[in-house]
Amino acid sequence: MQIADVVSFLKGADDFVILTHRQPDGDALGSAYGLLRVLSKIGKRAKVLHEGENLSEKFQYLTDGIEEASFEPKTVIAVDVADVKLLPHEYKETYKDIVDLCIDHHGSNTHYAKQYYVDSYAAATGEIIYQIEKELDVEIDIKIAEALYTAISTDTGCFKFGNTTSQTHSIASELMKTGMNFLDINRKMFESYSKERLAIECLAINSIEYSFDSRCATLWITREMMQKTGALEDDLEGLSSIPRMIKGVRVGITVKETETGFKVSVRTAPGYNACAICAELGGGGHEAAAGCFIKGSHADVREKLTSAVEKHIQKE
Amino acid sequence: MQIADVVSFLKGADDFVILTHRQPDGDALGSAYGLLRVLSKIGKRAKVLHEGENLSEKFQYLTDGIEEASFEPKTVIAVDVADVKLLPHEYKETYKDIVDLCIDHHGSNTHYAKQYYVDSYAAATGEIIYQIEKELDVEIDIKIAEALYTAISTDTGCFKFGNTTSQTHSIASELMKTGMNFLDINRKMFESYSKERLAIECLAINSIEYSFDSRCATLWITREMMQKTGALEDDLEGLSSIPRMIKGVRVGITVKETETGFKVSVRTAPGYNACAICAELGGGGHEAAAGCFIKGSHADVREKLTSAVEKHIQKE
Repeated sequence: MQIADVVSFLKGADDFVILTHRQPDGDALGSAYGLLRVLSKIGKRAKVLHEGENLSEKFQYLTDGIEEASFEPKTVIAVDVADVKLLPHEYKETYKDIVDLCIDHHGSNTHYAKQYYVDSYAAATGEIIYQIEKELDVEIDIKIAEALYTAISTDTGCFKFGNTTSQTHSIASELMKTGMNFLDINRKMFESYSKERLAIECLAINSIEYSFDSRCATLWITREMMQKTGALEDDLEGLSSIPRMIKGVRVGITVKETETGFKVSVRTAPGYNACAICAELGGGGHEAAAGCFIKGSHADVREKLTSAVEKHIQKE
Repeated sequence: MQIADVVSFLKGADDFVILTHRQPDGDALGSAYGLLRVLSKIGKRAKVLHEGENLSEKFQYLTDGIEEASFEPKTVIAVDVADVKLLPHEYKETYKDIVDLCIDHHGSNTHYAKQYYVDSYAAATGEIIYQIEKELDVEIDIKIAEALYTAISTDTGCFKFGNTTSQTHSIASELMKTGMNFLDINRKMFESYSKERLAIECLAINSIEYSFDSRCATLWITREMMQKTGALEDDLEGLSSIPRMIKGVRVGITVKETETGFKVSVRTAPGYNACAICAELGGGGHEAAAGCFIKGSHADVREKLTSAVEKHIQKE
């Protein structure tokens, strides 16, 4: 499908339900509500079904002014959902076999829908929704701009990550012209921490162990730390990038204790292969970021990691 | 002066020395080296004089391939220097009265040069250098793009701060087209911390005192913490934004102990006036970010701050 085909499909269909993935992030919700608003502008009825009864407080602004729509859906769209397994549990059975159109930017998309538009060059699904809007010739208003900016800004770490492209900035430039409050969005998305988050961040930083002449750093997040600080899963966002940020560190490891073992995340500097390290331990991923799962005691994990890193950390 | 006048001036002059401000940041150095490279492309000789003998390691890439030029300067340009007082000490006396052209984005520019081009709409002086380059019809190469991206990205906190505009993103979009390694630049600028930085961050977070039903948070950076961790001034970057990031906090205060007293930085949420709080204590600044200096003991500072905040923190 080309963008023009997506637009023809949308014009020809009615009464949309828009689904997105479990544990929805900024791109999932920004794209879903952005699309809803675009469809409303061309006179279509649409509703977003997201996981859970209420949207988390930080995303509430995405729904401002949207009235609850009660209609029997005729058209099912999934946005930013790479695999049908990722649909929220409460909607999976009803919708998994009847998704009419999937709009996504994950190259790993499993093509579960009747039709799909997947553009893995897009840094966020929000970039695709923007293109749809342009093709539909719908005017960007502040609320659409806020939704799409949220999508793009969150998926690129505010234009910092490697997925950011010239196109990403060009779209952001257009969205900014509406005068939307991007500063407020960025504060909500990137500059809002709970007291519990700060507490566990300190404990985790104090847990850092250096090895291989400080070219490797390992940060621990234990269940005891979680209990002691009262931190929740949401409070851990971004912690796994800390070891890699330390000057001189080439292999940054984060080990998170779970009920059944240890979830390991490895981030490496250019020239050091995170995927190869994790493959030694039955895991995988990308060259710069990979993961694996290790069972055993703290000491076992430490030993296994040391031995895996040793094989792949070159002498400079 | 219009951009066209700046360009005429540059075309008509020769043998440039480019000055920038003390403790040069990404915009200072990115703009200076960006301009040097643009001038080289139109066949002019130019050199950058920055504070200190060596550039800090994180900015080394800006000078790649630039050969040392030995010539008697005929034309003096200051970039990103709002006030002649901000010139590096070693160059101030020689150049303070003979700056031919000042290119800057600070609205507070004191107009010390013979000619000046000040655009306070520009998020960074790097945006102005970009416009000069376009007007000169010089092709953007990767090294120019890296310099100007560094300038723009650092002054906007990677497109996160309120000074970011549609123009900022539009320029970034053009710079990205060269295929420059923006990821590497962002890592150097935003994701590189010393062990000492992490250590003092933890001590500072543990020092946070909450008041007014946790709507005010005060973080302390004492001389003892600096000694204990071995942290330097450079390691403190960004710490003063932590209190304001805590959920529910409306007035975020950072108190830094110096040899002669306490340097106070106040950051507020919309609706809370940081400047009014600091004005109570002889300081000033903007509505969202202001500062003041307090002499006395820790207890004195705490008392004075509490009393100043009390007058301006509204009940919700």
